[in-house]
Amino acid sequence: MASMARTSLSGFPEWLPEGRIIEQFLLDHIREVFELHGFSGIETRAVETLEQLEAKGETSKEVYVLDRLQAVKEAEAGRRSSKERRMGLHFDLTVPFARYVVENANELDFPFKRYQIQKVWRGERPQEGRFREFTQADIDVVGEGSLPFHFEVDLPLVMAQALAGLPIPKVTVLVNNRKVVQGVCESLGVDDVEAALRGLDKIDKIGPEGVARELAESGISGEQAETLLAMAQIRSADPAVIRNQIDALGVSGKLLDEGVSELCALLESAARRMPGAILADLKIARGLDYYTGSVYESVVEGHEDLGSICSGGRYDSLAKDGKRTYPGVGLSIGVSRLVSRMISTPMVKATRKVPSVVLVAVNDEADRARSEDIAAALRSRGIAADIAPTAAKFGKQIKFADKRGIPFVWFPGTDAQGDTVKDIRSGLQVDADSSTWMPSQEDLRPRVLALD
Amino acid sequence: MASMARTSLSGFPEWLPEGRIIEQFLLDHIREVFELHGFSGIETRAVETLEQLEAKGETSKEVYVLDRLQAVKEAEAGRRSSKERRMGLHFDLTVPFARYVVENANELDFPFKRYQIQKVWRGERPQEGRFREFTQADIDVVGEGSLPFHFEVDLPLVMAQALAGLPIPKVTVLVNNRKVVQGVCESLGVDDVEAALRGLDKIDKIGPEGVARELAESGISGEQAETLLAMAQIRSADPAVIRNQIDALGVSGKLLDEGVSELCALLESAARRMPGAILADLKIARGLDYYTGSVYESVVEGHEDLGSICSGGRYDSLAKDGKRTYPGVGLSIGVSRLVSRMISTPMVKATRKVPSVVLVAVNDEADRARSEDIAAALRSRGIAADIAPTAAKFGKQIKFADKRGIPFVWFPGTDAQGDTVKDIRSGLQVDADSSTWMPSQEDLRPRVLALD
Repeated sequence: MASMARTSLSGFPEWLPEGRIIEQFLLDHIREVFELHGFSGIETRAVETLEQLEAKGETSKEVYVLDRLQAVKEAEAGRRSSKERRMGLHFDLTVPFARYVVENANELDFPFKRYQIQKVWRGERPQEGRFREFTQADIDVVGEGSLPFHFEVDLPLVMAQALAGLPIPKVTVLVNNRKVVQGVCESLGVDDVEAALRGLDKIDKIGPEGVARELAESGISGEQAETLLAMAQIRSADPAVIRNQIDALGVSGKLLDEGVSELCALLESAARRMPGAILADLKIARGLDYYTGSVYESVVEGHEDLGSICSGGRYDSLAKDGKRTYPGVGLSIGVSRLVSRMISTPMVKATRKVPSVVLVAVNDEADRARSEDIAAALRSRGIAADIAPTAAKFGKQIKFADKRGIPFVWFPGTDAQGDTVKDIRSGLQVDADSSTWMPSQEDLRPRVLALD
Repeated sequence: MASMARTSLSGFPEWLPEGRIIEQFLLDHIREVFELHGFSGIETRAVETLEQLEAKGETSKEVYVLDRLQAVKEAEAGRRSSKERRMGLHFDLTVPFARYVVENANELDFPFKRYQIQKVWRGERPQEGRFREFTQADIDVVGEGSLPFHFEVDLPLVMAQALAGLPIPKVTVLVNNRKVVQGVCESLGVDDVEAALRGLDKIDKIGPEGVARELAESGISGEQAETLLAMAQIRSADPAVIRNQIDALGVSGKLLDEGVSELCALLESAARRMPGAILADLKIARGLDYYTGSVYESVVEGHEDLGSICSGGRYDSLAKDGKRTYPGVGLSIGVSRLVSRMISTPMVKATRKVPSVVLVAVNDEADRARSEDIAAALRSRGIAADIAPTAAKFGKQIKFADKRGIPFVWFPGTDAQGDTVKDIRSGLQVDADSSTWMPSQEDLRPRVLALD
C-alpha cells in the first residue's frame, strides 16, 4: 500500500507524506465546518489520573498506564518507596472533556460548544488488529443545568455536513432515541433495559434469532423479544412512517410518547435543513449507559463493514460537581479508521506528494542566490516553492519535480534573458515574472480527489 | 491568569478557549511558512520501543514507559507471565523521525524535507516546574549519503521567517559551528572536546569564572580555558569581524578553517536574504553530541530568561541502516513554552473567544427555523455563525454575543420587514441580506494581536 508507512509496531498507524496530505485535508475540512458552526477548539492533556479513567469500570482493561522509566528501574531494584499518583493515557475525548468542564466551569460560557481533535490510546491486545493509537474528532455542546432539545438536531447535522464535504461515498447518520427504547421496555414490562439494549446492539452481528436467544437468557420473554425485534426493524426518514410503525407495536406510555415526539421532531427539522442526511434506525442502541435521549451512528455507503465512523448521543449528566450538573450532546468521528480506509481502498488520491507547486531550478551553484530570490518572491505571494537541491543537469532537476508531483519548474534567466516557467504536465513553457505569475487556484495547493 | 486553564496535574498545561486561539494561530502560521518552503507534514506515533528511546543514554531518565493497566494488575497479583515488548512515549521528534526515515527510506524522495508538529513527553519530576507534556514544531531536511551545505543556511532562515511573522518581540537566531569549536580545541591541544562544550554551554548560568573552574576540573589548562572563553565571547553578524576575532585568538588548523568558512558563508547568505535575522555567537555549544556542523539557538528580545525557543543543528548521521547514512539539518520550536509565555506575560490578545463573527438572534422558539436558515446562508459563504440557544429577550441574546466577543448580532426580520445586523461594538444597525452581507476581512476570523 503505497501511502501507508510500514508499521513496525502493530496498532500504531503511520502515513507516508502522501497519506498525511489526505489526513490533513480531512482534518482541515472538518475543523473549518466546526468553526463555521461556532465551535471553539480546545485540547486537553493526553493523560488523566487513573481514578478519572476508571470511573467507568467497563473500559479499565484498555488503559495505558504511565510510569517514569527511572521509577520502574528503582522498583525493579526494590528501591522504590513513594508511589506517585498514577496516570494513564486517555482512551477517548469525552472523559477528559468532562473533567475540563468541571475544572474550568467558572471561566467557560455556557452553553459551551467545543471541538477537539486529538489522538487517543487503547491498550488493545495487538493480535486483535485494532488501532492502539488513533485520532478522534469530537464536537459537544454542554449546558449548565439544562440544555435545549434543538442541539440534538444541530449536532448530527454539523457532522453530516462535515462528512458530506469529503471525497468519500455518501454518509448517512442513523438516529434513535433512548426514551423510545426505554418506553417500549416499560410498556412491555421489561425491567432489564440494559440487557435489552445490549442484545439489540448485536443485531447486525448475530441476527434476530441470536438476539432473541440472548434476550431469553436475560429473562426477557419470547413475546417481549418479538416486539423488541419488531421495533428494531423500524427504519425511515419519514416521521409519519416512524409514528405508524411504533403505533403498530401496540405499546404506549408517557416516556415512549416523549421519545417518539423527539425523534420525529429531529427527523422533520433535519429533512428541512439537510434532506437525506439523517435516518431513524430503531436498532441503534449504543453501548454507553450515560446516553439519555438521541443516540447516533453513521454508515459510509458501500463500506458498511467499517462500522460506525461517527457516533454519539445526548447525556443528561456528562459531568457533575458539588452543586451543578452539565447535560450535553456530542458526536465523535473516528478519523484514523476513516483515513485508513480512504487510503487502503483507495477512495482518494492526492494531486501531489509535497506542498510545493513550483520547483525553482538552479543554473549554477554559484548562481543559487538568483534562484533563492525567485523562490522568496513566489513565497511572499503565497506560492509554495522549492529550490533544486543541486545545480544538476536540467533533466535531473525536472525529474526531481516530476517524482514529487510538482507541476511547474521555474528556470531563472540570465542577465540577457528573462525567467521562464514550464508546466511539466503539458510541456508548455512561457516567460514569467516571479513578482506577478500565479498558478491556477486548482494547482495552488495539493488537493485530494475522489477516485472514479 | 485568565487564558490558562487551571491545571490539576502540574507539568501538563491546558488552555482555555481563548488561549487555544492563540496557540492555534501560532501553529497555523508556522505550518503555512513550512509549507511555503516545501516541507511535507508528517506525524509519527507517540510511542517508540525502549531500545529506540534509550539509544542515547543521557535521556533515559526522562522517558514515560507504557503498560496496559490489565498487565499491571496481573503483575501486581503475581500472575503476569509473558513480558510484552516495552514501549515509551517519545521525548522529542528527532528520534521518531530518524526511525521513520530508516523504515520508509525506499518510499521517500531524498533530500526529504519534513515538518512535524506534535506533543512530546518527558517524565520530569513535577517539583521542577517543567512541562511534562508539550508541543514541538520541527523542520528537518535529510539526505541519502550526502547533503549540500546550503541547507544549513536555508533552515534557520525558515525558522526566522516563521518566528518573525508572530506578534511577539524580535527573535534572533544565534549560530555557531561545531567545526570552529573543535578546530579551536585541536589547535590548543584540548583532547576532551565534549568537556569543553559542556563547560561553555554553562557560560550564561555560571559565568566565565565558573566555566573556567569546570574546565580546569576536566584537565583543561588555564591558558587553554582563557582562549576558549575568549572565543566564546565572539558575537557578530559580520563575517569580517568573526574572521578577525578568531584570527586574534592565535589558533589555526584545517578543521577550524573549514568551520570559519562555513560560518561566514552562512552569515553572508543570511544577511542578503533576511538582514538582522541571524547572528554568530560562538558560545553556543548545544549539548547533543550528534551535531557536526552548524548549531542554532534563538532568543526572544526581552525574554532572554525563557532560554532558547528554537534550536537545532547539522548532523552527519541522524540515522543509519545497513548500507546507508542519512545526514541532515533541523531545528525545533518549543511551542508550548513560547505560547505559555505569550499568554502569561501577556504579549498578545485574541480579538474574541469563539470562531463566530455573527450571532443570529431568535425572535421566537417557534420561529427558530428562520434563524437556522440565516446561519446556514452565512456559513455557506464562509462566515462563522452561531444561533442564540434560546429565544430569550434580545438584551440577553446581545449579552450572549458580548460575553464571547462576537461582534455582530443578526436580527431576523418578519414577513413584513427584512433582516438587520448590528455591530454591537459601535451600536450601528443596518439592513442586511444573508446571501450577500460580508463582515470586514479583519473581523472574519478571530485574530491575535500584539499588546502595546
